[in-house]
Amino acid sequence: MAKIADKYFITDPWKVIERGFNPKYARVSESVFALSNENLGIRGYFDEGGSVDSLRGAYTNGVYDLENLPKSYRGIVDKTHFMIPSADWVKTRISVDGEVLDLGKAKFSDFIRELDMRSGTLTRSFIWHTKSGKDLRLTFLRFLDMHHGERAYQRIAMEALNFTGSVELTAGISFDVLHEGRQICFWGDTRIDISGNSCAVQSRTLLSGQEVFAAALWDIPGVCGGERHERTATLKTTLSLTKERPLCIDKRVVILFDGTEGETLWQNGQAALRETAGVSLDQALKAQKAYWEEHWLISDVVIEPDRTDENTAAVVAEEQQGIRFCSFQMAQIYNGGSVRHNIGAKGLTGEAYNGHAFWDTEACCLPFYLFTNPAAAKSLLMFRYNTLPQAMERAKMLDCEGACYPVATLNGHEACTLWQHASLQFQPSTAVAYGIWHYAHVTGDMDFLWEYGAEMLLQVARFLVSRVARSSRTGKFGYYGVMGPDEFHVMVNNNAYTNYMGKRSLEYAFETLCAMKTERPERYELLCKKTGLKENELRIWKEVADNMTMPMTDSGLIEQHDGYFDLPHIDIQSIPVCEFPLYDHWSYDRIYRTDMIKQPDVLMLFYLYNSSFTHEVKRINYEFYEPRTIHESSLSPSVHSILAAELGRMEEATNFFGYATRLDLDNYNRNTGDGLHITSFAMAWANIVYGFAGLRSDGDVIRFAPSLPVRWSRLRFSLTYRGRILDIDMKKERTRFTLRQGDPIELTVYGKTYELGAEGLVISAV
Amino acid sequence: MAKIADKYFITDPWKVIERGFNPKYARVSESVFALSNENLGIRGYFDEGGSVDSLRGAYTNGVYDLENLPKSYRGIVDKTHFMIPSADWVKTRISVDGEVLDLGKAKFSDFIRELDMRSGTLTRSFIWHTKSGKDLRLTFLRFLDMHHGERAYQRIAMEALNFTGSVELTAGISFDVLHEGRQICFWGDTRIDISGNSCAVQSRTLLSGQEVFAAALWDIPGVCGGERHERTATLKTTLSLTKERPLCIDKRVVILFDGTEGETLWQNGQAALRETAGVSLDQALKAQKAYWEEHWLISDVVIEPDRTDENTAAVVAEEQQGIRFCSFQMAQIYNGGSVRHNIGAKGLTGEAYNGHAFWDTEACCLPFYLFTNPAAAKSLLMFRYNTLPQAMERAKMLDCEGACYPVATLNGHEACTLWQHASLQFQPSTAVAYGIWHYAHVTGDMDFLWEYGAEMLLQVARFLVSRVARSSRTGKFGYYGVMGPDEFHVMVNNNAYTNYMGKRSLEYAFETLCAMKTERPERYELLCKKTGLKENELRIWKEVADNMTMPMTDSGLIEQHDGYFDLPHIDIQSIPVCEFPLYDHWSYDRIYRTDMIKQPDVLMLFYLYNSSFTHEVKRINYEFYEPRTIHESSLSPSVHSILAAELGRMEEATNFFGYATRLDLDNYNRNTGDGLHITSFAMAWANIVYGFAGLRSDGDVIRFAPSLPVRWSRLRFSLTYRGRILDIDMKKERTRFTLRQGDPIELTVYGKTYELGAEGLVISAV
Repeated sequence: MAKIADKYFITDPWKVIERGFNPKYARVSESVFALSNENLGIRGYFDEGGSVDSLRGAYTNGVYDLENLPKSYRGIVDKTHFMIPSADWVKTRISVDGEVLDLGKAKFSDFIRELDMRSGTLTRSFIWHTKSGKDLRLTFLRFLDMHHGERAYQRIAMEALNFTGSVELTAGISFDVLHEGRQICFWGDTRIDISGNSCAVQSRTLLSGQEVFAAALWDIPGVCGGERHERTATLKTTLSLTKERPLCIDKRVVILFDGTEGETLWQNGQAALRETAGVSLDQALKAQKAYWEEHWLISDVVIEPDRTDENTAAVVAEEQQGIRFCSFQMAQIYNGGSVRHNIGAKGLTGEAYNGHAFWDTEACCLPFYLFTNPAAAKSLLMFRYNTLPQAMERAKMLDCEGACYPVATLNGHEACTLWQHASLQFQPSTAVAYGIWHYAHVTGDMDFLWEYGAEMLLQVARFLVSRVARSSRTGKFGYYGVMGPDEFHVMVNNNAYTNYMGKRSLEYAFETLCAMKTERPERYELLCKKTGLKENELRIWKEVADNMTMPMTDSGLIEQHDGYFDLPHIDIQSIPVCEFPLYDHWSYDRIYRTDMIKQPDVLMLFYLYNSSFTHEVKRINYEFYEPRTIHESSLSPSVHSILAAELGRMEEATNFFGYATRLDLDNYNRNTGDGLHITSFAMAWANIVYGFAGLRSDGDVIRFAPSLPVRWSRLRFSLTYRGRILDIDMKKERTRFTLRQGDPIELTVYGKTYELGAEGLVISAV
Repeated sequence: MAKIADKYFITDPWKVIERGFNPKYARVSESVFALSNENLGIRGYFDEGGSVDSLRGAYTNGVYDLENLPKSYRGIVDKTHFMIPSADWVKTRISVDGEVLDLGKAKFSDFIRELDMRSGTLTRSFIWHTKSGKDLRLTFLRFLDMHHGERAYQRIAMEALNFTGSVELTAGISFDVLHEGRQICFWGDTRIDISGNSCAVQSRTLLSGQEVFAAALWDIPGVCGGERHERTATLKTTLSLTKERPLCIDKRVVILFDGTEGETLWQNGQAALRETAGVSLDQALKAQKAYWEEHWLISDVVIEPDRTDENTAAVVAEEQQGIRFCSFQMAQIYNGGSVRHNIGAKGLTGEAYNGHAFWDTEACCLPFYLFTNPAAAKSLLMFRYNTLPQAMERAKMLDCEGACYPVATLNGHEACTLWQHASLQFQPSTAVAYGIWHYAHVTGDMDFLWEYGAEMLLQVARFLVSRVARSSRTGKFGYYGVMGPDEFHVMVNNNAYTNYMGKRSLEYAFETLCAMKTERPERYELLCKKTGLKENELRIWKEVADNMTMPMTDSGLIEQHDGYFDLPHIDIQSIPVCEFPLYDHWSYDRIYRTDMIKQPDVLMLFYLYNSSFTHEVKRINYEFYEPRTIHESSLSPSVHSILAAELGRMEEATNFFGYATRLDLDNYNRNTGDGLHITSFAMAWANIVYGFAGLRSDGDVIRFAPSLPVRWSRLRFSLTYRGRILDIDMKKERTRFTLRQGDPIELTVYGKTYELGAEGLVISAV
């Protein structure tokens, strides 16, 4: 069951490098070289197209289309939505002497592709040896403007190495890309304008009726001819190259999706294009570099090898590259630019999972933002606030009250078409409650709590109370017919995770509303009016929370759900590697009837509510559940690693950490080609910060318990926390805490509380 | 929750009569007036079409088309099949003075429609008052030949009541009917021939590639003109009517689906048509009446009211009509004519349930045939034998061995698209094993057992052993992740029904194979060779059977499945009537998380293996489960009625019997319009024979325990049993058993064993 790295890219502290092109890795490279600026995303596909296997995915965050499903039973989703490819803005065709450039067929050399994480740029360079014997060096550069979400840039540099002559160039903007799974182009009603060296295309999705404006402006020598096809605007030109005199074509692009439509959008788009015209690609690139420099000041994680032997150095260098790649991708995919956005499981790097966001957002991603970009953390919660109406509608469909947050969504509506997940998993709802708590707890932002959080908590509490039921035997409350985080047990009763999260969510809702009544009575009154909240309801929340079933043996072992201890045992080590992933090889139901679990369920509680459980309870449950877990979720190993580190099982902690940072760089799951495992990147960050620095953010004071993996000599990272910036510098023998910015603050290290002031703190390892 | 009769038809001992036409009941009437001869089926729709709400369903048994489904997980059906409408052979258009007859718009009087259960004919008669002031009496007669499955007849009689003049008649054969749910015509590639007064059409289904030949021969005065449309052949003529001189047009029809195709089928069809030409409609009708006379000699159930008050007489008259309707429909839908046929839940009377057969066949229908038409019972089992390869393929898809019989099928392949049913319900497989046992046990047909039964048992046993697992706690065997007959608990462990049926199936497979080894060693050897059976396997079957989990409390209460006693209780009486059926009103998952059950699960065991449980165990479990059962399956009340009668709860038994015989005649479920509940009809018969006569067929000797409902004074019926025909004549004070045919035989009445010989037996009531 060990996952095996599929090494392809070259290790470098700040770059991901592909030297030479292997078509077998074409899609993996496209994913790894994907760029995003939260607003736009583009896979690293070849600008010039060609016959190489490719998913031509350029995406606009929030753009989706709909599918009406056959009417089924009540509560089963009958309309789903899914991210669709948006404007292909790098589309280019290049030909020399009638030969069209196609790296799937052409002769070429010196291929190199680089993602630079200090600038967020992708460059690709090679020498094309044409059939007519000409050598043409081509270099493609692209980036998505981190300051202006609607802007994108492409540069094509050409150098005739052994000739003087002409090159035909066709380039444009196209909405003609098919959705890969459905093989349909979801764009219709297109308006096209071509004038001089610029073109604009505006198109509308077939069913959702969303409109996107895309335009480009070329810095190109000579006059271009324009061509329009159904959903495509193209400019054509013939470039005259002089031997060894490089030539550069810059394309400035605007892709606007601002919620307007028709003429309004068209005018907004043209205005945005005009603004772009005032900024050269080089100026934008300079600003781009500054953005990333700023990012790394807060979000960098630096690790150094413990030994100087080549092997250790290589592994740690890979980890260094890996963790930077994770941090880079997280910052690319979401920075709080818009509360309309959330974080898709694959971000904007592929169409797998339909672009949907899951409970990963609150459970896995939120901590990263809480400690590096708290404003973005708030924006993520505002997404949930703004989609509260959809969650309330969903609860109604489930014959419940309040708000049931969707399992999978782009727009707040439930998009998950598998009823067993959509109707039985309440992780999203309790994760929202948890996220609100975690955010308010870490940031102290009570305004958010009163203004938005309380209302969400109230509606989630209503849902939880309307969905709970009493055991015939014990009379205690519990959730029946649910699926916990461990999706290998489809429909169970009293799932410990669901019950406990329900209990804590209800308690927090109760406490919050009670506190609000005292501290913000006028706001409380308004909320009561808006939601029809009755005094009695709070009492019921408390009663349900106080009487929630939580099956724990005398030893402290928590039963994952009713009957779990009876389930047939399977030795997961006995499953041949070739049968993974099980979903692809086993009969669907076969996966679900043993004690094998997919990902942490009971153990997840210890990650989220760490200080609420004793060391002994954590140990006993870890020892029981870990050997039964196959980690078919990419989030699973990090949670185990964090707990193992806490339990002093450093070797296990390091092993579980193993591929966390390089899940996609080394294509461990063999599905990187479908897109990056974005939310896993957040867990890789958490793995280091919660795992090896021992950060715990669920107590009154943030706690640390640093403990380095054997192969590291040093780990440095920073955290933002309540207006401060803390620099943490761990070495084997000590950890230094420095207050880079802000007022002194209390923190706990190895169980002892200190005040961290300007002078810093050095704590010896225990 | 009480079901309420929607009375519409007139009560009559041998007929179902509709006097006057209410368009609101159009579809209900179409279903109730459906005819079938096992091979063909036709709803009672109007020959002349028109604007009245209608499902124009004429079906050919075994004809279906396919749908490829989106690829999902392994073991989840990715191709389904469903019955489609076949040739519309009564298609007629009648017009007078340019007005086309349409009962949705025309003025008419004296409408009467009658189904005669002594002849299997449907007649419909009315006077059409044309806009031009003419009164035309029209009488339509149709029947499906019970002797020749491919033959059908239509007669149209016309009488001009107040005029002499002409009527335009167009009539034909058409494959143009749309599948109602999909709104697609599944017929393509049509060949049409029209010559003289006959026409033939042969067409092929789009995906399944099945070919059907349909032809008609008119006995009609004058010359017809032919017309051909895409999938339709039509004859047109003008009839000259003379006032008060009735005119008759007979149409003899052949619809052939014999597994051949192309020219071969065409020639076979033409030959069949030529044969038909030698038999007039009246001759065929005579033979038809003889067929039904024969049927009623064995299969009639006669009941007489206890009191002469009008109310009781009316209720019992309805029951009399009802039970005859049940017996009539069972004989119509299946008589063992072909081992390619099975019994769809709706027979050939509608497209709901896609024409699929379920485990109802073995659990509910088989007893009816065992005791009225044992050859048909054998044919039903031969259907399962012939589809053993498909069941073995299905088991493989589920990562199991042996044979897993489909939940829903027309052709042996699993057609159920809901994974939670198709992958988790093993009732079909254990029902096949039970059916084999029941058949061999009742008929003593050991040749069938050695030749066919043993092989099915072997493969079912292999499946059951490959699917079983051991509890981590007790080490005992059980089925995990299953759905029992109670479909309100989707995915449970150690469902008592599944475990017990698995145990008994394995035991029976073991016993059968052991006996075969001794009694038919050469046949046993052949079977071993064919199936690769290892000696060791038998041992394992026995071991699993001997160590099967069967959770029973000390008091004898059986827990339906692990954790059932813990489930939240719901008072089913508190559910408002308007919320039924729950599937239409409740969120899908909400149905599944209380102790409410849909249909007998534990109690079903007492019906099937009656003598294996004590009276006390039956009582305790009946008293526990009955109040938790909502009977959302139409099979449910009969099983409860049978048990209630056995437990001496005659009032309950009578109440549950209540609507059993008139489920569709009185449209209790308000969905008769979609088709008849065919398999429920078999249970209505069982309700009387097992319930009130107390027949038990699972012991060594057949047993009776007669006990009449209060409102009945007498109940008479007959049974075929091991070559004998037994007449049973129950009165309140005594039951008379007469051996109409065959050798003396032992039977048990009220627990005492007697020999029934030529002189008969009279047993006083206890």
